[in-house]
Amino acid sequence: MSMQVPAGHLLEKINYPSDLKQLKVEELKQVCQELRQYIIDVVSVNGGHFAASLGVVELTVALQYVLNTPYDQLVWDVGHQAYGHKILTGRRDIFHTNRVYKGMSGFPKRSESEYDTFGVGHSSTSISAALGMAVASHYKGETDRQHVAVIGDGAMTAGMAFEALNHAGIENSNLLVILNDNNMSIDPNVGALKEYLTDITTSKPYNRFRDDIAHVLAKISAIGPDAFKIAQKLEKSIKGTLLKKSNFFEALKFRYFGPIDGHDVEHLVKVLTDLRDIPGPKLLHCITVKGKGYALAEKDQTKWHAPGLFDKITGEIKKTKHEKPQPPKYQDVFGHTIIELAEQNPKIMGITPAMPSGCSLNLMMKAMPNRAFDVGIAEQHAVTFSAGLASQGLIPFCNIYSSFMQRAYDQVIHDVAIQNLNVVFCLDRAGIAGADGPTHHGAYDLAFMRCIPNMTVSAPMNEEELRNLMFTAQQDDMGPFVIRYPRGNGVMVDWQRPLKAIKVGKGRKVCDGEEVAILSIGHIGNEVVKATAELNSAGYYPAHYDLRFVKPLDEALLHEVFKKFSKVITVEDGCLEGGMGSAVLEFMADNNYQLQVVRLGIPDMVIEHGDQPELWADCGYDAKSIAAQVMALGIKQNKHTIAS
Amino acid sequence: MSMQVPAGHLLEKINYPSDLKQLKVEELKQVCQELRQYIIDVVSVNGGHFAASLGVVELTVALQYVLNTPYDQLVWDVGHQAYGHKILTGRRDIFHTNRVYKGMSGFPKRSESEYDTFGVGHSSTSISAALGMAVASHYKGETDRQHVAVIGDGAMTAGMAFEALNHAGIENSNLLVILNDNNMSIDPNVGALKEYLTDITTSKPYNRFRDDIAHVLAKISAIGPDAFKIAQKLEKSIKGTLLKKSNFFEALKFRYFGPIDGHDVEHLVKVLTDLRDIPGPKLLHCITVKGKGYALAEKDQTKWHAPGLFDKITGEIKKTKHEKPQPPKYQDVFGHTIIELAEQNPKIMGITPAMPSGCSLNLMMKAMPNRAFDVGIAEQHAVTFSAGLASQGLIPFCNIYSSFMQRAYDQVIHDVAIQNLNVVFCLDRAGIAGADGPTHHGAYDLAFMRCIPNMTVSAPMNEEELRNLMFTAQQDDMGPFVIRYPRGNGVMVDWQRPLKAIKVGKGRKVCDGEEVAILSIGHIGNEVVKATAELNSAGYYPAHYDLRFVKPLDEALLHEVFKKFSKVITVEDGCLEGGMGSAVLEFMADNNYQLQVVRLGIPDMVIEHGDQPELWADCGYDAKSIAAQVMALGIKQNKHTIAS
Repeated sequence: MSMQVPAGHLLEKINYPSDLKQLKVEELKQVCQELRQYIIDVVSVNGGHFAASLGVVELTVALQYVLNTPYDQLVWDVGHQAYGHKILTGRRDIFHTNRVYKGMSGFPKRSESEYDTFGVGHSSTSISAALGMAVASHYKGETDRQHVAVIGDGAMTAGMAFEALNHAGIENSNLLVILNDNNMSIDPNVGALKEYLTDITTSKPYNRFRDDIAHVLAKISAIGPDAFKIAQKLEKSIKGTLLKKSNFFEALKFRYFGPIDGHDVEHLVKVLTDLRDIPGPKLLHCITVKGKGYALAEKDQTKWHAPGLFDKITGEIKKTKHEKPQPPKYQDVFGHTIIELAEQNPKIMGITPAMPSGCSLNLMMKAMPNRAFDVGIAEQHAVTFSAGLASQGLIPFCNIYSSFMQRAYDQVIHDVAIQNLNVVFCLDRAGIAGADGPTHHGAYDLAFMRCIPNMTVSAPMNEEELRNLMFTAQQDDMGPFVIRYPRGNGVMVDWQRPLKAIKVGKGRKVCDGEEVAILSIGHIGNEVVKATAELNSAGYYPAHYDLRFVKPLDEALLHEVFKKFSKVITVEDGCLEGGMGSAVLEFMADNNYQLQVVRLGIPDMVIEHGDQPELWADCGYDAKSIAAQVMALGIKQNKHTIAS
Repeated sequence: MSMQVPAGHLLEKINYPSDLKQLKVEELKQVCQELRQYIIDVVSVNGGHFAASLGVVELTVALQYVLNTPYDQLVWDVGHQAYGHKILTGRRDIFHTNRVYKGMSGFPKRSESEYDTFGVGHSSTSISAALGMAVASHYKGETDRQHVAVIGDGAMTAGMAFEALNHAGIENSNLLVILNDNNMSIDPNVGALKEYLTDITTSKPYNRFRDDIAHVLAKISAIGPDAFKIAQKLEKSIKGTLLKKSNFFEALKFRYFGPIDGHDVEHLVKVLTDLRDIPGPKLLHCITVKGKGYALAEKDQTKWHAPGLFDKITGEIKKTKHEKPQPPKYQDVFGHTIIELAEQNPKIMGITPAMPSGCSLNLMMKAMPNRAFDVGIAEQHAVTFSAGLASQGLIPFCNIYSSFMQRAYDQVIHDVAIQNLNVVFCLDRAGIAGADGPTHHGAYDLAFMRCIPNMTVSAPMNEEELRNLMFTAQQDDMGPFVIRYPRGNGVMVDWQRPLKAIKVGKGRKVCDGEEVAILSIGHIGNEVVKATAELNSAGYYPAHYDLRFVKPLDEALLHEVFKKFSKVITVEDGCLEGGMGSAVLEFMADNNYQLQVVRLGIPDMVIEHGDQPELWADCGYDAKSIAAQVMALGIKQNKHTIAS
């Protein structure tokens, strides 16, 4: 829904940062109010990320006021905090198309605007990217050019942010890192660094130190008025040293400034202006509140990270009303089932890198706090930590979104698979992820996982299958075991059925048929079910098999298929290069079958954002496309019904 | 060559740590001398890593003396420092088989010994793994169990080490991290953390601070003798605080101890004994010298990281003598060619994550220091930093060993490929890597790279092709471009030929033939050349094509092949699942060709260590195996010669 800025608002006349710069610094507070209100107005009716952008309204306005963008380069880490940035840089009037199919991207995107210097989506890339830009400027002799990375305290826990700080500290480049410290990732931030940041914000180290030496200073002061002055001076010097020179970031050779209030826009303008003239790597520590200015969001920041549509006055989150009970989200099936399994099997542990509410491990963290761990935005550590647990005979379920698993690929190979350790990888958001777009599609996991030795790679077609695969994976001596499933809801209302083990590598026949066999893997098999139903009603009867496992393949099933049918279609919600279809081709070649195989899946291109069904259709593997593909093979019409 | 410990040496009677524990602490110094000498004796005649293990002799002895291994758990980061550990834990008498085909692994390995708690090879995994073990012990109630990770200052720069510290700092587990600070990776360590460690070792922050407030203290002291005492006390307190409480690791909630001399074995025993009783996460900072005790190695630590065979008396490194000039190493072709290209193209930059001598970027770092960067052990940052450079129109060549590239997979997809940035990835050590074994084989890159959109994936068959691919990749608008090549030498003595661009996706016919076509990718094509020569001499004439590109495929070439030949063999030094052979099968299926394709490559299993030719033979794609495979297809003998 399009949305006008109220007439008379300053924001009405701000299309680009150049317009913002016409205002007096005293007017910026009003701009912030209007910008915040505009974000609330639009997101409440169109959806999207919410609390993060509210938290950086003042930072956004101050940065655009002080910097000379796009010449000066600004990188927003993760990017779901960049709505204000987009509105102030030429995209106010398309903001209502945010995250919609063919609309504005929910993240900064180079092809969308010259103000979006670097595409983001996954966290913690901003310092590396901005440093690259700064080094390029240095090399080109652009000494006046500013480079700024805005990164959250959650994102700062990821290893690559540290790697970037470690390098930036020794490059004499014009780099400013703004630490947007709000104590949150999507869920509350965790880890030692977070505690440290809280310490320095509340001056605890100084306070502790001051207590330690207070009596010494008191003794000095007691000597006389001159000594008192000396003691005061000394205290000041010690305070300055402890809070500055010995700071974590100063240890990494950054000049540290702050902490300052990230909601005082005038002060931010002053500080950013001053910092512009200080060369070398520097870090500004800003304290902000995620959800700032919307009381409910300030109160429950996880819930309001991306709340969906809501009534901006009452705060009521709008839910689609259903007459009948609906199938659950896959993530909730995971969340409930791991507890059920862990109650029976004391070896089971749960691990998530900073996505407890996103993957529903928060249920286990609450029910079994000593057996479920949020390790922060730290996929690499999450995997090797799991390997360490598994080396002691435990069975960790490490839940990582499919696209985030790319962050820990070496750890999967090097620490888990080579040692054949029992780690269960539950890959949520596998396949087309929807509105989050290209950075978040879990397109590649079947390809990059199935080439790893010792690995079992599976995908459930529905909730019951997910439960049974989880039950299967937690048995002893299973080795590394991948279970991948998509974002969103399954297909079974009555999903809490008794748990059953599945034979590893065993697929199943969904329905028998003639001439053409359709092989599917995972949830997308439900589109095949729809397609065959449609085809059946027109007198066409392809068979349908759910492979369940991409590795190991069900060779008996495949022999049956390649002997019985003349044409095979493979369907997967994953990339065509190297995916399940390719695994089937490998089986065919290795067994010297020669017949026609058509592979459906994600084509070899960057898939933009949109709803899952829209994108499945675009990629040619929704029910309609599958049916069309069957017809295109010249299958014979047959008016009798096939017994399944 | 097997090697006896000299009679009468204490080491002669030490087979296991229990034997070591029988000795008096005063005898440990002698054990260290003997152990060091034994390592020198054996490595000088058998080869292997050298300087790292010499540097931790005292640490190794002290740890095994104090800890109750294998109940207490010791993880050696990277693991090439673990020779002393292996000798003291039951493997003295097989130490001479180190890194030899079917011999002892050069790295700790769980299947080799219960003392090897965790398989290592790539750096920076030890803290995560040891924390996993510690948390498992905590969960099981094994409160007395010790968990120790020994990690170098180079390995500490990798993001995953930081992620692990960040998590460990808030887990109340029994974890001791020993920072083995020798200022080195394989090459000298770089980065802000390294400078910080040097600072705290030499007490620079304290010194600076002391200078700042010296006059204040002087003033206090001048007041009188009581004030002088107070000032002294104050100085001590400040020193304690600055060096302890405000320490980098203390910020991450570790208790910090040190720095201490890592070559004083008796003191190490005392400190480690004390630390055993201190609960929670703690870090012991040990200063060591890489190559300690072998003067030449101490002097040139990079050269002596893994020097090959040498005369232990003179230090002369033994080189195989050749009558004729030999082909160069691929890495040196890279190293020289990038300079040649960069001299002509000012956009070119060079990036390596801590492998300047391993990949020969050190040549460019010396020739063009402002255009070549060692960013530390930081593959993730290396890739996104490269993306940042590329976003500014530069063309970075990011050189990363194939297996280490697994560490930055997400960055390749998310930061480079989705944005279609011109980053050239030169993947050294691709395919079977040799003596380093499973952790270092670059087996998966063709599979995990070719599924990424926008990516070009290539591999040169010889030095000239490598040069031409590099020349091709540095042209404008090429997008992300992978060039993968193996460890070791090429095949061309006369390799410095004029640079020529290759059409992207264009393969080449190596020789014409009949019935069977062999398609190869990369250096392993030279085994096909040998195979065809052998077959030709027996009257069999398979054709041979070098694909050069796995992505995009040369479709014209493949149409020619699939039309002309009845049987196809694919040969690659990479995994069979999803690799080049699978790409050819995808082409075949998509174009509805139906013929027999046999794929040769790395099978779906963990490949152990050994020489490359030994392992190629084991995997079935050395020249002999390829020829046998051709014969097995029932090819017709034909006594005439084919014109190529």
